[in-house]
Amino acid sequence: MRPDERKTNELRPISVLRHFTNKTPGSVLIRAGETMVLCTASVSSKLPAWMDPEENRGWVTAEYSMMPGSTSPRKSRERGGKIDGRSSEIQRLIGRSLRAVVDLEKLGPRAVTIDCDVLQADGGTRTLSITGAMIALLDALHSIEEFQNMVPGDPDFPARDYAAAVSVGLVEGEPRLDLCYLEDAAAEVDMNVVMTAGGRFIEIQGTGEEATFDENQLAALLALAKKGISELTEIQKNGG
Amino acid sequence: MRPDERKTNELRPISVLRHFTNKTPGSVLIRAGETMVLCTASVSSKLPAWMDPEENRGWVTAEYSMMPGSTSPRKSRERGGKIDGRSSEIQRLIGRSLRAVVDLEKLGPRAVTIDCDVLQADGGTRTLSITGAMIALLDALHSIEEFQNMVPGDPDFPARDYAAAVSVGLVEGEPRLDLCYLEDAAAEVDMNVVMTAGGRFIEIQGTGEEATFDENQLAALLALAKKGISELTEIQKNGG
Amino acid sequence: MRPDERKTNELRPISVLRHFTNKTPGSVLIRAGETMVLCTASVSSKLPAWMDPEENRGWVTAEYSMMPGSTSPRKSRERGGKIDGRSSEIQRLIGRSLRAVVDLEKLGPRAVTIDCDVLQADGGTRTLSITGAMIALLDALHSIEEFQNMVPGDPDFPARDYAAAVSVGLVEGEPRLDLCYLEDAAAEVDMNVVMTAGGRFIEIQGTGEEATFDENQLAALLALAKKGISELTEIQKNGG
Amino acid sequence: MRPDERKTNELRPISVLRHFTNKTPGSVLIRAGETMVLCTASVSSKLPAWMDPEENRGWVTAEYSMMPGSTSPRKSRERGGKIDGRSSEIQRLIGRSLRAVVDLEKLGPRAVTIDCDVLQADGGTRTLSITGAMIALLDALHSIEEFQNMVPGDPDFPARDYAAAVSVGLVEGEPRLDLCYLEDAAAEVDMNVVMTAGGRFIEIQGTGEEATFDENQLAALLALAKKGISELTEIQKNGG
Amino acid sequence: MRPDERKTNELRPISVLRHFTNKTPGSVLIRAGETMVLCTASVSSKLPAWMDPEENRGWVTAEYSMMPGSTSPRKSRERGGKIDGRSSEIQRLIGRSLRAVVDLEKLGPRAVTIDCDVLQADGGTRTLSITGAMIALLDALHSIEEFQNMVPGDPDFPARDYAAAVSVGLVEGEPRLDLCYLEDAAAEVDMNVVMTAGGRFIEIQGTGEEATFDENQLAALLALAKKGISELTEIQKNGG
Amino acid sequence: MRPDERKTNELRPISVLRHFTNKTPGSVLIRAGETMVLCTASVSSKLPAWMDPEENRGWVTAEYSMMPGSTSPRKSRERGGKIDGRSSEIQRLIGRSLRAVVDLEKLGPRAVTIDCDVLQADGGTRTLSITGAMIALLDALHSIEEFQNMVPGDPDFPARDYAAAVSVGLVEGEPRLDLCYLEDAAAEVDMNVVMTAGGRFIEIQGTGEEATFDENQLAALLALAKKGISELTEIQKNGG
Repeated sequence: MRPDERKTNELRPISVLRHFTNKTPGSVLIRAGETMVLCTASVSSKLPAWMDPEENRGWVTAEYSMMPGSTSPRKSRERGGKIDGRSSEIQRLIGRSLRAVVDLEKLGPRAVTIDCDVLQADGGTRTLSITGAMIALLDALHSIEEFQNMVPGDPDFPARDYAAAVSVGLVEGEPRLDLCYLEDAAAEVDMNVVMTAGGRFIEIQGTGEEATFDENQLAALLALAKKGISELTEIQKNGG
Repeated sequence: MRPDERKTNELRPISVLRHFTNKTPGSVLIRAGETMVLCTASVSSKLPAWMDPEENRGWVTAEYSMMPGSTSPRKSRERGGKIDGRSSEIQRLIGRSLRAVVDLEKLGPRAVTIDCDVLQADGGTRTLSITGAMIALLDALHSIEEFQNMVPGDPDFPARDYAAAVSVGLVEGEPRLDLCYLEDAAAEVDMNVVMTAGGRFIEIQGTGEEATFDENQLAALLALAKKGISELTEIQKNGG
Repeated sequence: MRPDERKTNELRPISVLRHFTNKTPGSVLIRAGETMVLCTASVSSKLPAWMDPEENRGWVTAEYSMMPGSTSPRKSRERGGKIDGRSSEIQRLIGRSLRAVVDLEKLGPRAVTIDCDVLQADGGTRTLSITGAMIALLDALHSIEEFQNMVPGDPDFPARDYAAAVSVGLVEGEPRLDLCYLEDAAAEVDMNVVMTAGGRFIEIQGTGEEATFDENQLAALLALAKKGISELTEIQKNGG
Repeated sequence: MRPDERKTNELRPISVLRHFTNKTPGSVLIRAGETMVLCTASVSSKLPAWMDPEENRGWVTAEYSMMPGSTSPRKSRERGGKIDGRSSEIQRLIGRSLRAVVDLEKLGPRAVTIDCDVLQADGGTRTLSITGAMIALLDALHSIEEFQNMVPGDPDFPARDYAAAVSVGLVEGEPRLDLCYLEDAAAEVDMNVVMTAGGRFIEIQGTGEEATFDENQLAALLALAKKGISELTEIQKNGG
Repeated sequence: MRPDERKTNELRPISVLRHFTNKTPGSVLIRAGETMVLCTASVSSKLPAWMDPEENRGWVTAEYSMMPGSTSPRKSRERGGKIDGRSSEIQRLIGRSLRAVVDLEKLGPRAVTIDCDVLQADGGTRTLSITGAMIALLDALHSIEEFQNMVPGDPDFPARDYAAAVSVGLVEGEPRLDLCYLEDAAAEVDMNVVMTAGGRFIEIQGTGEEATFDENQLAALLALAKKGISELTEIQKNGG
Repeated sequence: MRPDERKTNELRPISVLRHFTNKTPGSVLIRAGETMVLCTASVSSKLPAWMDPEENRGWVTAEYSMMPGSTSPRKSRERGGKIDGRSSEIQRLIGRSLRAVVDLEKLGPRAVTIDCDVLQADGGTRTLSITGAMIALLDALHSIEEFQNMVPGDPDFPARDYAAAVSVGLVEGEPRLDLCYLEDAAAEVDMNVVMTAGGRFIEIQGTGEEATFDENQLAALLALAKKGISELTEIQKNGG
């Protein structure tokens, strides 16, 4: 039995609140069970310094942070030079995942920054950030006049597809979908999977937590992830 | 005429959502007009290093930060050693204001940290942070068994009184209460006032923004602040 | 009785030594009782990066630091990434106070930086820094040929007025002018006031130190500050 | 045809030089084609601060860095507060991979730190670091008297198994083993796989580099990785 | 002819003002020509973390900094993580020089910190810092009751001898004593020498500034340094 | 008797391995006894920001670091804002020493950076770094077409001469050449000397380690250094 009585292949209940704040064109408060992330998407004409402005391409990047009150005991802020390797790793994953479905040429010379701030953490914060960031990104793109009523797949729209993510894991030997914190802490194997609505892989990160796993276990985990992600991209298509 | 058609002595509409998140005993989403702050209050038995553990006193402190998407253009995160003097100044003010109404001996050997994170900024973020932090602090105190049903003024309750804050200012020579961003940017004089429900001053910070002001103007501004704060502490008494 | 036997409305003895060092056009060693601050003013044609060079305006800014030997026990240097919120707050106040009496258009495209380094600390370091910085600023302006023999109020002179500052406070319920360290540490209410020679307010920062204060007490403190500042601006007019 | 004329399922030539330096019990200079990493393993009785000394368990951690001259143009040092997210991510992966095959209870209260410094970079630095770090770790364990002549699998030996890693990827649609830099830069999909000598997965990190991949491609890549890693663990067993 | 018309073997005029500030037991304002340094010496019972408290030995250390207004153009403060290699190097030299004449066992478990802050820089700041720091150190030692009336050489006094320093250099091929800034900038060879009153070397740092020098030139420079230092230690003996 | 049975005027055995890595035009693994340093030299057309690009001059600089496994116990990395004064001091010395024999005008608008990373430390790491850096610098210059077959002294070659360095010291009162770690730790006086092949001084840094020394001792130490350096520059001339 799972702590919240879900079936092993069942997602936590998802809720999506778009336009939660109004200073950025994309602003999504997304919730899966007890995990809650605010994803805001800003658009700027100022490209990163390393880009060649002649190329006329854009860029999509992300930042991730856990708010101090998102967890108990309170998490210290990443201020004053302290480095948090985990945050750095997660925000690189979010940015990479979004860029896998964005055509940077079609985006044109614009920089989109997605900020994923975890308001409440109960497992799966990085995967929920990706799923929410995708919706915020679409809202940000829609705020640009030339992309106004387009959807992923439209020929001139920078987003080629939807991208969503979910965690899966082996807990007491059992493959489970969308781990909550209690399961995550107890998992022998923890895997984060990012896929498109079309069922193609964007990223797989599977880790034996002081353990190892075999090919059959891998296959079972990937099947669960595929099922979960297809449900998540349906929610994205329906506008949250 | 004010940008949002308020009277000169009228507060912006306030809304208070308690228990917005559930990992900290206090969690208040407070909103005044377009300004929105999340105040979470954590309690820990780990006192700051500079305190003498023998003294048996507690401590109340605050941290303040503007989230990247709270403003347009996007605000860079205070990470990796960058110092933001304004944030540091504001969080010192919030902590000081709360401690003015808390009896640290009655609190006992506990550290309360209030995190004020601005989700949306439209002027008055520091004063709204104080008003919201007070409510989060009370919820955090109520989560401690011995203080459970107490209210400010009760003999054993660490909070002696309510504290709330508001900004006032001279805009085009006119004294106004609770400035929104447009007014704040145009103000000749900007003043932040923190007071108790009993009408006593905790802190006054008045600044001529490349201008100066005289005693009559000071008196008019303080009268406006007093009116606004008495309305805010009523809201606090009524539980948000 | 005050620790140094002054009357409640009496300033500490002030001494001003101009041209204490000779590498900067302004260099003032100012002393009030046991508090001693070196204020040097440098002029540069390099404006801050955020200013629009087209505007033809100047800028005045300040930095504040307590020297390691200025206090006992020794104060660690603010080096290698350590942030000192108090210093940051004070130097922002000094800069703001000076800019309130400077016409940045008349200054032209010049950046004036005033460094206030506390050599010996016995209370009132931030207010004495402002009073000394004003004199250093005037000397720096006089080093620029076109402003050579001008005084505040002259139509083309960037300084419109003098600015000086003093602390006042309630100690054992008694309003006192220009607190020394012993009084500052014991004060229930501590207030720093910046005013012009013409008696207008530039900044008021009043803080109940874990206490609160009422309107009558505020009025008494402001009256003391006004008296003190009018004496300080007289000293400034007379050239220190 | 691959740039170095290898078959698609062929590893680069590997060479292992143990005891390259003599100040640490483990010191391995490992080379795969043009990629060269120095892995030194130090043992200390000083455990990380977050560990409970009562538990009697040890810890294994790793640090990774690219030396300035390892690449062209020269890579700036990570000094003076600059954060390198990529390095942080890689060193977390190395540490996790080693801990997956180490029994921390059997290790006893000892901290082993493996430093992986890339002397020359031509693709696959993180996977070669893992393969080399494993050999350095074994040498470090053998320097402890009670583990002197043991091998992975021996009941009291902290290392349960060997761990090695390799990169695989899709280049021009073709699955290839052990990518060199030119292939890595051109790959549509890049995957790093860590496995035991027994053929179990420790970690899978597969990334569509601005692309996506399907299940068949995943299967082909994993098969290549398995072949490569079984060759690498043979080299480890034979003492480098 | 030298810029200030001195003979090649002549020191600049020296003045020493002891007890310039009163928060530290040693406080010396020392001046050589236009160079001016404030040296304050603090005594603490808190030893550096790396010392074994069982040993009952003390420590003497120094910090060096150039104040922003000490030079033109203004020197930025070393704040917020910026590293200044030159300052670090100089303060290590000052500490080492003082420790060469201090018996740390006789000092007992005390840490003496000498802060050398350059108020005005015109060449020779590091050597003048050493000469002034020695006087401040002696005053600090005299503030400790058991060392009250002792002088260097007394059997129980921690200071075994006086230490002073001076710069010498080759300017236009000519050996000169105590270079001012103009000479320092033009020197082919620059040498800082630290010696005892007894004429023994503590430290020699000679540098060809994009040039080289031979043995005869070295001998001439050392002879000049010896003469200068014997005059400086006379001043130290006479109490400044 | 010396720990490694050398004569007092005998260098440790030197070995030089050029082209140890191939990503930089200069790459020298140099070894003296147990001390081992990797010196890589990179050439870039990007000059330091402080240089005036109009001048058409080049720059030579160095960075020095001890690798974590170069010493026992392991040395922490200089990451995340931690400052290491010793490293900063040494790398300034290396850069200065090389620039003393380089004509920056003849170098043209190029920046050469030499990275000296200590792989194994047994005394004399800074002097061996200089000796090895000189060889790496020559290899880097030879990689530039116009300097291809030139040697120091050739009229158009940027290097005017060879530069090498060695440590000397007084150990138990005896002058010794090229101290190993055990001798270095026990030395009363420690001196690092940098000279040209032509026997001229570039830099002398002599330090009484909590001791002092007289003129005869200085002369004996310099004679030893001269002998050692003439052997080292012979090795440099013969190509390592």
